[in-house]
Amino acid sequence: MELLSENKCFGGQQAVYKHASTSCSCDMTFGLFLPEESRDGPVPVLWFLSGLTCTHENAMIKAGAQAWAAEQGIALVFPDTSPRGAAVANDDAYDLGQGAGFYVNATHAPWAAHFKMWDYIATELPELLAENFPLDMERQAITGHSMGGHGALTLAMSLPGRFKSVSAFAPISNPTQSDWGRKQFTAYLGDDESKWTAHDASLLMQEKGFDGPILIDTGSDDQFYDLLKPEAFAEAVAKRRQPATLRLQRGYDHSYFFVSTFMEDHITFHAEALYAE
Amino acid sequence: MELLSENKCFGGQQAVYKHASTSCSCDMTFGLFLPEESRDGPVPVLWFLSGLTCTHENAMIKAGAQAWAAEQGIALVFPDTSPRGAAVANDDAYDLGQGAGFYVNATHAPWAAHFKMWDYIATELPELLAENFPLDMERQAITGHSMGGHGALTLAMSLPGRFKSVSAFAPISNPTQSDWGRKQFTAYLGDDESKWTAHDASLLMQEKGFDGPILIDTGSDDQFYDLLKPEAFAEAVAKRRQPATLRLQRGYDHSYFFVSTFMEDHITFHAEALYAE
Repeated sequence: MELLSENKCFGGQQAVYKHASTSCSCDMTFGLFLPEESRDGPVPVLWFLSGLTCTHENAMIKAGAQAWAAEQGIALVFPDTSPRGAAVANDDAYDLGQGAGFYVNATHAPWAAHFKMWDYIATELPELLAENFPLDMERQAITGHSMGGHGALTLAMSLPGRFKSVSAFAPISNPTQSDWGRKQFTAYLGDDESKWTAHDASLLMQEKGFDGPILIDTGSDDQFYDLLKPEAFAEAVAKRRQPATLRLQRGYDHSYFFVSTFMEDHITFHAEALYAE
Repeated sequence: MELLSENKCFGGQQAVYKHASTSCSCDMTFGLFLPEESRDGPVPVLWFLSGLTCTHENAMIKAGAQAWAAEQGIALVFPDTSPRGAAVANDDAYDLGQGAGFYVNATHAPWAAHFKMWDYIATELPELLAENFPLDMERQAITGHSMGGHGALTLAMSLPGRFKSVSAFAPISNPTQSDWGRKQFTAYLGDDESKWTAHDASLLMQEKGFDGPILIDTGSDDQFYDLLKPEAFAEAVAKRRQPATLRLQRGYDHSYFFVSTFMEDHITFHAEALYAE
């Protein structure tokens, strides 16, 4: 593991590391914010999964999360959104290939060689973090934006007991019924739609739900609203009687100006779950 | 004036505008955050001047300022750091030409045709803002980072009565004695060093001081510490008995991770001055 940068930030340290990923068979980069409290022992962890076109860096510099994580004594992990490199398959479209891993394990060529983002986020990176940093892996929570909100919700529901709480900003909520989903699942997972259902937050909510609190914010003026399909997730939550807070925020769009506005709420929400006895 | 983008942010609006600048004889772009309170009438204004290589955008997306400006009901202006465009003189170095206006009026070729950042910030942009937005121009304050901290301090001391308060993050404090200054002043203002003194915060502090509160933060691990020369400004402040708070922050560097960490302090500081009776 190689330290690429380290900057003091809100009393803690914002670092960026590169490591050789066995899941993705390439070098992967992630950001890690450790609050000041981590000097005295393990701290809880909040994962932030990013959206289409993002690297580890976008949320790290634009979401304003460190201010609130420092206040709560929580670490932040900012993974990349896909494998990267000249040897890794790609596509000219912004929403397929590098920068668009969709948090699945690809099974079809040319993607299957590297695009194992599910394994990377669910298994490899948590193990690496647990071995190397003062993190309390019994106290993890997860959030994300757009494609990363999809990742946060599907991981949280598929790994019961792993995350104390889950939240999302403008998540892709029903990808099996959206152009943000069908195109990528066809490419990564193939035409058999039965293979897609494990990666659809609304379907997972119908089947499994989540044993913990949920908070979702979406802007009423989100320019990608029709692709996100918050109505499918809202219906599934209501049918299941799943405890959850779903908020439509008047006038906000899909940008990090929206994300940063509600970051304090989300980190406070996760802190309550992470510090609950 | 053309609206390039508008995003709801912390209850207000973060907009970006382009306009034909008469000072700089080219199109100029600036960011403007208007808090929710601006719907009901004019609000105070805090200028944020950015550093070398920055456009209007860096601080707007990385400094985390809108959170605190919204809390205080204060507007934020993010000007660009130089004229721009194919017709505008430039240099291969990152610290001369486009992105490095140094907040002076250039008098020497090839810079004099466009590089009039002093007039732009001191006169043209304030007039444009006053005409077009609900801003209380009797309540202005100014801050900046690095080269922008230099700009904030020199403008504040040279325009008595204009700004209620001035602050800076890692300002270039003694440019007539620094490689961040001598090179640019030679290019923009010529070899006659007597023309430079009006643009050196430490010399201005000796001569004029500032009729209001001053707050300066610099990181003890700033990688450009030797170029900033905070010791010259500190000496001038002490000799003058100028009321000011100069803070060296242990372990912080020159990055926006440093700036964002102390942004709440700076905006709270300016709010006290802007709302004082």
